[in-house]
Amino acid sequence: MLNKWHTLIENNAVSDISTLLADDVTLFSPVIHTPIKGKEMVSLYLTAAFHTFLNGTFTYNREFSGDNAAVLEFSLVIQEIDINGIDMITWNDAGKITEFKVMIRPYKALNMINEQMTAMLTQLKNR
Amino acid sequence: MLNKWHTLIENNAVSDISTLLADDVTLFSPVIHTPIKGKEMVSLYLTAAFHTFLNGTFTYNREFSGDNAAVLEFSLVIQEIDINGIDMITWNDAGKITEFKVMIRPYKALNMINEQMTAMLTQLKNR
Repeated sequence: MLNKWHTLIENNAVSDISTLLADDVTLFSPVIHTPIKGKEMVSLYLTAAFHTFLNGTFTYNREFSGDNAAVLEFSLVIQEIDINGIDMITWNDAGKITEFKVMIRPYKALNMINEQMTAMLTQLKNR
Repeated sequence: MLNKWHTLIENNAVSDISTLLADDVTLFSPVIHTPIKGKEMVSLYLTAAFHTFLNGTFTYNREFSGDNAAVLEFSLVIQEIDINGIDMITWNDAGKITEFKVMIRPYKALNMINEQMTAMLTQLKNR
């Protein structure tokens, strides 16, 4: 699963995101409490995230292994603000992502990401 | 190392925190960008964190293993706000913590923790 995810990121392959998601996938955003549910909504959110995060400075720094799950630490810079965070990814035995959770630090970076993601989601929804 | 950390948490043993820290330990807070450096300052910060987080609702949910490092996912409730986060702990070959990084979601929870931690740190510094 993780190899496929890394390939997706390396190729900025937004149109392939949904192929890695389980139908009942749940996304937990760094900003809002209520989870985002289902392949369609999660694909939209991750598409916005790809457009926002993959700006040429995005790097995965470290990897932590769990039970059918992993934590990938990342860093990037947007408008001179250092952003540090994690993708916490859980998958099923079929290798499809069932849960995607994102956390971001510090506070200033979370504010920046929130603004950028909100703008990007609005843009994608109005297409 | 992790066993010792879990014992510390279970016993809310604030006075033993420094025994697990390397002299040159660095703490990365969920709120501020600038790291907190050295055993004395990090002990103070973690003492405030113990007082703030260990309110009877704190639980570690999942564990992810890295290279001399781990990510521990936690959840707790403060004033009816659900707080979800991670401790990303790195240690040296002597089993002392060299880096402690905390991330928190969602936004409302980060605000709440920021307020509580600021108040607790002020209280501890004025002792």
